[in-house]
Amino acid sequence: MDISVHGRTRHYRTVTFDSTRNTVCLIEQRLLPHCFKIVAMPDFRATARAIRQMIVRGAGAIGATAAYGLAQGARAFRGANPRRFSAHLQLVRQTLQQARPTAVDPVNAMDAVLRAMPAGATVPEQQALALAAAEEFASQDVRHCAAIGRHGEKLIRPGARILTHCNAGWLAFVDIGSATAPLYAAQQAGKKFHVYCGETRPRCQGATLTAWELAGQKIPHQIIADSAAGHLMQRGEIDLVIVGGDRVLGRTGEVANKIGTYTKAVLASRHRIPFYVAIPLSTIDWNLRSGRAIPIEERDPAEVLGAWGLARGLPAMTYFRIANLTSGARNPGFDVTPPELITGIITPEGIFNPRDLWKNRHRLGHPG
Amino acid sequence: MDISVHGRTRHYRTVTFDSTRNTVCLIEQRLLPHCFKIVAMPDFRATARAIRQMIVRGAGAIGATAAYGLAQGARAFRGANPRRFSAHLQLVRQTLQQARPTAVDPVNAMDAVLRAMPAGATVPEQQALALAAAEEFASQDVRHCAAIGRHGEKLIRPGARILTHCNAGWLAFVDIGSATAPLYAAQQAGKKFHVYCGETRPRCQGATLTAWELAGQKIPHQIIADSAAGHLMQRGEIDLVIVGGDRVLGRTGEVANKIGTYTKAVLASRHRIPFYVAIPLSTIDWNLRSGRAIPIEERDPAEVLGAWGLARGLPAMTYFRIANLTSGARNPGFDVTPPELITGIITPEGIFNPRDLWKNRHRLGHPG
Repeated sequence: MDISVHGRTRHYRTVTFDSTRNTVCLIEQRLLPHCFKIVAMPDFRATARAIRQMIVRGAGAIGATAAYGLAQGARAFRGANPRRFSAHLQLVRQTLQQARPTAVDPVNAMDAVLRAMPAGATVPEQQALALAAAEEFASQDVRHCAAIGRHGEKLIRPGARILTHCNAGWLAFVDIGSATAPLYAAQQAGKKFHVYCGETRPRCQGATLTAWELAGQKIPHQIIADSAAGHLMQRGEIDLVIVGGDRVLGRTGEVANKIGTYTKAVLASRHRIPFYVAIPLSTIDWNLRSGRAIPIEERDPAEVLGAWGLARGLPAMTYFRIANLTSGARNPGFDVTPPELITGIITPEGIFNPRDLWKNRHRLGHPG
Repeated sequence: MDISVHGRTRHYRTVTFDSTRNTVCLIEQRLLPHCFKIVAMPDFRATARAIRQMIVRGAGAIGATAAYGLAQGARAFRGANPRRFSAHLQLVRQTLQQARPTAVDPVNAMDAVLRAMPAGATVPEQQALALAAAEEFASQDVRHCAAIGRHGEKLIRPGARILTHCNAGWLAFVDIGSATAPLYAAQQAGKKFHVYCGETRPRCQGATLTAWELAGQKIPHQIIADSAAGHLMQRGEIDLVIVGGDRVLGRTGEVANKIGTYTKAVLASRHRIPFYVAIPLSTIDWNLRSGRAIPIEERDPAEVLGAWGLARGLPAMTYFRIANLTSGARNPGFDVTPPELITGIITPEGIFNPRDLWKNRHRLGHPG
């Protein structure tokens, strides 16, 4: 998106590739919103670490990062032996996939890169094809998000008050975002509306990343505690909910997303408020047969026991302990929302009832 | 409760009165859980300020503080003129009530003190009666909480996993607490169980106060993000919910309580998990005819935009900014839960269906 950094406005993508230096370049998201910085990952192991440590996060963004990381690893290979090249690629792929095992976008992205490479006859040709395929994945992610915006924008009535959760914005993709795409498209169409950003404890991506994005685009918004959404719905102050997804089951319509998504869906259903999930096609998992089979990452209790913030005299994003020092925490990172609570899935191909994904699988990129 | 401070175990009440110095003595709750300190309020204006600034908070605790503050103000009066004494009392009462206009406990507590005073023939006699009535309110609060424990303890099965929200513990009352009373009683009965403390953003009373209380009593517990309760319920990991109340409407059974209570009730109802509200009789409002009439305090956005915590080199409970600096927040402090979502109201007189409070009003302290 176009953003202004130190008074200069220019266009940024969340993830890019520097082919001269063979580096993956990322916005250092752990420093946002208090500091905007681009960091370059010098090799595929550093790129994997950037995913694990959440320098980059979000479905599409880690998909593109993994695709670029695979190309980066392929291009670093010295030699002409196809067997050794293939073994090296397996190592690179595994390293990148293990950085975020619950996500499906990196798997789909790296599969696309690996499918493109055999067309090359030599190692250098295959290296070039890997980078081209990674660039194509990133560009496709942008096209998908733009298409999500065109479809989703129609759901936004002038004056609408829209709730979102976590960050499924341009920072979570290569550009534009999924849940934010309809917002940016509606703004371009001249519509006025108001966004409530659920703060999204424990990591507060709503209060930090989404709020920063919306402020950058001058979209009116306010942050609310996660607990406040139910009250606002009860008082008739929310008209529409749009969230992203970390893994959408093509066979069942279940949606795994940031912890708290399920709660918002239950509340929206009770108040008959439309609840939409916006995703590119790379977020669909065509294999799993039940949401119960999605592994729910139990994350570090420290995230719940404190937070990262800014105080006078300390570096940006210092960790603060909030909770009682002799207490522990549980920290499930994701939850699963069943299809009956979801009004529609906004995809680049249009808006679908979650139960109709399988029926439309060929349009929606099912590989079979 | 008995707690250990600097290695010495003794019994504390949240609010006490020093009749020699005419001071209201309070646990400085804003420093908890990182620092335990008792502070003395030298006059009724300081006592009112302590309520407003949340040195003391919680339904029963601010009720007792207001009762003591009224006695403190009455005892500070010099002179024998009944008319001037009466005008002074009105000023004291108004100052204390305005410190927390949404609560009903301070009003009920001060009414009890004022009703007791006319039995005295002289100003000094009335001053003595005021203090006696305030002491009686505080003692009644303790008796009520103990009775809540006896009734509520029966709901706790061995091995139960219990969710609570905010702090309705002994820190929120004079002693024992309302939502925690069944827990402490079950522990005394030798039952084993596990408590999930919802952290309760924005002020995090669950992560700080309730967790500190439970750790002090050695009750197994874990803190969870407010957003995690739905997921745990979905996975069958919560058996019972017990919360407190800031104002319970005797005519309708609606419960105003800390923001997020309504959300927990909606989730519990969906998962058929029993949801109880524990309150002493002073929390019942017999006048209001609709939850819509309860004023919902919109609190300082700074609470949502940051948090209070502990970091190396900084004093306990330093405020740090979490959210994007150019974004604002909405911060409703309370919400209203309708009776159809509440399994029962645990009172000192037993457990009632919320819709049966009015029918049982004479048992439940209705003044008429």
